[in-house]
Amino acid sequence: MIKKFIIGIDLGGTNLKCSLLDNKLKIRARNSFSTKSFNSKEKLIRGLADSINNFILSSGYDAGAILGVGIGVPGPVDTFKGIVHFLPNIPGWKEVNLKKVLEKKTGLKVFIDNDARLMSLAESKIGAARGFSNVLCLTLGTGVGGGLILNNLLYRGKDNAAGEFGHVPINITGPKCGCGSEACIETYIGNNAIKKSAVSIFGAGISLEKISYLARNNNRKAVKFWNEAGKKLGIALSGAVNLLNLDAVVIGGGVSSAGWPLFEGIKQAIAKRSMSVQGKRVKIYRAKLGVDAGIIGAGYLVKERLGI
Amino acid sequence: MIKKFIIGIDLGGTNLKCSLLDNKLKIRARNSFSTKSFNSKEKLIRGLADSINNFILSSGYDAGAILGVGIGVPGPVDTFKGIVHFLPNIPGWKEVNLKKVLEKKTGLKVFIDNDARLMSLAESKIGAARGFSNVLCLTLGTGVGGGLILNNLLYRGKDNAAGEFGHVPINITGPKCGCGSEACIETYIGNNAIKKSAVSIFGAGISLEKISYLARNNNRKAVKFWNEAGKKLGIALSGAVNLLNLDAVVIGGGVSSAGWPLFEGIKQAIAKRSMSVQGKRVKIYRAKLGVDAGIIGAGYLVKERLGI
Repeated sequence: MIKKFIIGIDLGGTNLKCSLLDNKLKIRARNSFSTKSFNSKEKLIRGLADSINNFILSSGYDAGAILGVGIGVPGPVDTFKGIVHFLPNIPGWKEVNLKKVLEKKTGLKVFIDNDARLMSLAESKIGAARGFSNVLCLTLGTGVGGGLILNNLLYRGKDNAAGEFGHVPINITGPKCGCGSEACIETYIGNNAIKKSAVSIFGAGISLEKISYLARNNNRKAVKFWNEAGKKLGIALSGAVNLLNLDAVVIGGGVSSAGWPLFEGIKQAIAKRSMSVQGKRVKIYRAKLGVDAGIIGAGYLVKERLGI
Repeated sequence: MIKKFIIGIDLGGTNLKCSLLDNKLKIRARNSFSTKSFNSKEKLIRGLADSINNFILSSGYDAGAILGVGIGVPGPVDTFKGIVHFLPNIPGWKEVNLKKVLEKKTGLKVFIDNDARLMSLAESKIGAARGFSNVLCLTLGTGVGGGLILNNLLYRGKDNAAGEFGHVPINITGPKCGCGSEACIETYIGNNAIKKSAVSIFGAGISLEKISYLARNNNRKAVKFWNEAGKKLGIALSGAVNLLNLDAVVIGGGVSSAGWPLFEGIKQAIAKRSMSVQGKRVKIYRAKLGVDAGIIGAGYLVKERLGI
């Protein structure tokens, strides 16, 4: 039988998403588990292995049809050795050779990478960043993750740690950040910071979804709320735009669903704060692949490593 | 006769430096003029052409021995078309095809690029950035110029405008910047800002050279002065370090001669403000090639374009 399928996995702090992709990276089948239901490192690893194996069984194909497994994880990894350094939002993970363990448990080739880097890869191949050479892709959620496409390739840096736009400071001093620093853009527009600010303006019990709904219906306070968040992000982006002469910035993740008032704020700040040549060049887009970006990126990772 | 020499020119706001380089880019002869003595665009272009021609004559070689001319200019350029977009510190230049004009006037192949980009190229080839894959090179002067080496190559961005680290904001609001924005790092550690701050601390008439001298002799106030400037630069650098997972930052230009109190401030801020993996990776060095970096970089530009 000709090997022609790839398993793409997106391991998030909340959900573990599993997909069967064909060799054009179209999603043929999918499955999802609660990450928290696996409440230890060992259980999560067994859960990953079982879900891969069960997934193959239930899909009707046999393991011989699988080219490899790609996994995106929410933290810093050594993608070439397959080691997860740690996972900020999933306790108990430290220097785990996930590739080796899973290859042993499944008999399949396994490749891992950071989730934001895989999302960037997917958006650059078939999403909003397609056709652009130099792109910063962001996921706005609890954290502000990022990935860079430079000269049409995923830019990793020596430690595969490049793209951490969430930890670019936008003030000399400011709120303490989980990374150990302060005033990082994540401390202003990360989910928790935005929620806190929402409560102080709209009162307890307000949800970000509700504010987005109000903004879509032109509620002035809600529009201003997202606009201000966008402006802060835009100021931080102007630094990256000036430094990297970016062609495009692609923004996804839960917070990006706030829509136009957020994006208007971003664009206004970039127009005001970046240099003329760079500001004129850069386009700001909403991510296109949504929740599937990580899975499709995992598929590209497998193809890239196998050279197919 | 075998063509084997290159003319490297560094056109600064103050001096126009001209050098004859052999094909290993060793400087064989040099010459310098005051840029301001050519008080119009036309005179400066004629001055450039004359100095190239006279320089060849006085060097004892004939034009047939010259492979090409490389010129670094202090402003944004289209390096492939050879067009100078404008020069912030030399009035009257707007969309000048310097390459075409000088090729006509000299009969030689002429290549132009931004001066900070050429300095970065030189430092990465034979200077402090040699052997590192991902480096940000800075020149601290009136402006804060920069250039990026990524994956061992000069990273230009689509408009050859990448590297403008001087215009990364370090505060949401702050001093107005020449670029039209505010709170750019240049507005805090550019020569003019530092001089202003020096006067407010040490009184009128103080020079930056004098403060550097005092700092070298452990004058507490002077050490603190440079340390504070270094910390601001370090905070801005932590953003670039987190985003690009840089191997090294190389710092040159007049202000860098302040020496260890400046560099200590930079290193302290980077240690405190960057993420663990990125902070551990990055090395901070003083530029090695000094005033010759631009000329040597211009030589590399010629070699790169001629494919030799």
